Amino acid sequence: MATKTSRVVIQKLRSVADQVVKTIQKGKNPSIDIPLRTLANVKWNEKRFIIEMGNAKQERSFFNVAMAKKFMQTFLVASKCKELLEEDKSASLRELFYMSKGSVAGSKENTFEEQEESDEVVEDLEVCVDALREELKLKADKRGSLVGEIVFSDKGDTIDARRMGTGGWAIPSIVEPEVIEFKKCDAKFVLLVEKAALWERLNEDKFWLKHKCILLTGQGQPPRGVRRLLHRMVNELKLPLYVFVDNDPWGYYIYSVVKQGSINLAYESIRMAVPQAKFIGLSSFDRDKYPFMNEVDIKLNDQDISRAKQLLEYPWFQKKEWQREIRNMLKTGVKFELEALAKKRISFVSEEYLPKKIKDRDFLD
Amino acid sequence: MATKTSRVVIQKLRSVADQVVKTIQKGKNPSIDIPLRTLANVKWNEKRFIIEMGNAKQERSFFNVAMAKKFMQTFLVASKCKELLEEDKSASLRELFYMSKGSVAGSKENTFEEQEESDEVVEDLEVCVDALREELKLKADKRGSLVGEIVFSDKGDTIDARRMGTGGWAIPSIVEPEVIEFKKCDAKFVLLVEKAALWERLNEDKFWLKHKCILLTGQGQPPRGVRRLLHRMVNELKLPLYVFVDNDPWGYYIYSVVKQGSINLAYESIRMAVPQAKFIGLSSFDRDKYPFMNEVDIKLNDQDISRAKQLLEYPWFQKKEWQREIRNMLKTGVKFELEALAKKRISFVSEEYLPKKIKDRDFLD
Repeated sequence: MATKTSRVVIQKLRSVADQVVKTIQKGKNPSIDIPLRTLANVKWNEKRFIIEMGNAKQERSFFNVAMAKKFMQTFLVASKCKELLEEDKSASLRELFYMSKGSVAGSKENTFEEQEESDEVVEDLEVCVDALREELKLKADKRGSLVGEIVFSDKGDTIDARRMGTGGWAIPSIVEPEVIEFKKCDAKFVLLVEKAALWERLNEDKFWLKHKCILLTGQGQPPRGVRRLLHRMVNELKLPLYVFVDNDPWGYYIYSVVKQGSINLAYESIRMAVPQAKFIGLSSFDRDKYPFMNEVDIKLNDQDISRAKQLLEYPWFQKKEWQREIRNMLKTGVKFELEALAKKRISFVSEEYLPKKIKDRDFLD
Repeated sequence: MATKTSRVVIQKLRSVADQVVKTIQKGKNPSIDIPLRTLANVKWNEKRFIIEMGNAKQERSFFNVAMAKKFMQTFLVASKCKELLEEDKSASLRELFYMSKGSVAGSKENTFEEQEESDEVVEDLEVCVDALREELKLKADKRGSLVGEIVFSDKGDTIDARRMGTGGWAIPSIVEPEVIEFKKCDAKFVLLVEKAALWERLNEDKFWLKHKCILLTGQGQPPRGVRRLLHRMVNELKLPLYVFVDNDPWGYYIYSVVKQGSINLAYESIRMAVPQAKFIGLSSFDRDKYPFMNEVDIKLNDQDISRAKQLLEYPWFQKKEWQREIRNMLKTGVKFELEALAKKRISFVSEEYLPKKIKDRDFLD
């Protein structure tokens, strides 16, 4: 049975189809308008501090040799999503591909050959009906864990994140309000840690209890489920978000995707990006405060250097403080991993490094 | 404060050190015997159906130019592990590397240059004191989720795996009995699924409730935490274990590592391998029962073919049924992914495929 939210999405899908049917009944060439997902239609919104999509659209019509297949694919994927919504079941993008794969009746053509094709149609459909893929019941990869000062329900089960042991709650791929409902929250902030090992360190030290926070890891670039959950926590629970990553260009980039979204998925920034996010470390200036770090630095390689130079050009890294941070990394020629903090002592990160950063409000914005 | 188990391990470390001290006091060349982890010292135990380590040992002595550094490294890592055990804190292999990295007093030599060196010493130490790295408080990568018919405690917190929502409990890297204690279990079997998407499918369909099982995913080759937990569940709770993987050589291999361990870590088979594990699918013969699968097969590539041919030679794939299975894959020239089952219908896997396999006891052993 479709849920209330699902019924709204089904209605959106239906209205796209209705319009096409009406055009056919008038004897005209049916078409749909799909907002363009090209780089030219991606804009940096400095005021909102997110990457967002412009207004350019493309008409996709049926009686057009170049578009007929895509037109058919769009409605095929839409019909599979409608089935999922009606049954209240979710599918991965890979499952959706297989569900939609097959031969076109009366021809030797296949509906889809590769998953890239159906993935692209999913993105078209998201912008076309203005619904996140999660609202279309489509799952991305699941990764990451959570513990801390929050109680919520997950499809009816109460999850008390203060009593989740060493493992924590495994963050699912769909965390929309009809699945995850926040119940009680005593946290003062949210801390996202890049690496699982550090998350385990902070959990073992009960950092979240002493400092009243919610502790998450996305294990690298956080997957959609983690990003969407961060967005919801910051906006619905009005909590600050601190991002804790390696001091290398990839760490900076993880922070930037969490904060203002990515160019590829500009459409989703509005419900995934967290412009309020603050960078808590590691900073290339930390070595000045903690000389031991000079014993555990790693030389930048050519890839690091060219990536850092790219970051310097991004509009969202134009703030004076960020230019200073990235340039200092290039000047010193070294990077630092989160694990390197263990050199001082195993709990240095939870007992000294992070508490001091938070107390001094020593963040980059 | 060290726990009871930790005190036993500390005692083992201490006795290795005591012996060295005694030798020094006698004015002799101190040395330790380290079981050899070379391929030549790995044996296939057909009776126990696991890959295990032989009895060959190597003497590592201090007054030997080729061994002096390794000797020093071994004791350095041992002393760091002792610290962790005394503080009851765990570290990742990367953290341990940083903890041990530094310059050797009075020289320009570094203790360690690369993590590979300290990783190797950890493996030496494990076999030398007969303790898993987890007992030395060392963590591997954390990955995977669990739901199902079991209640356990995780460092004092009660985890009711029947009430874990869509996310599940995130499996930690250390699941030794002093952390994870089984409390109540109504499960009839354990099901390990290769892919998170399928785990989410089975959880959404409450497969574990209808079929009374514990449902885990290791997201690819299961990490040590998952393998050790499977070992404990099968041995302590006396449950059968079914492994559900893609029908390709990599799926077969995941099954084989879960079942009899790996050549690289032969030492650990005795506490990690689960020779009782059964292969529930996907089988290359499934296409005969389910013709729709022919619409969603994928042609084997050259890598698949050569890997499948290697598997045919492994002693643990010599059973008639396994030779038949692998040869059929090669004969048909195609493989299948778990997600492909969605072609029939989204819940085909939980409502028809798996229940029938279990009812017919249609497993490979």
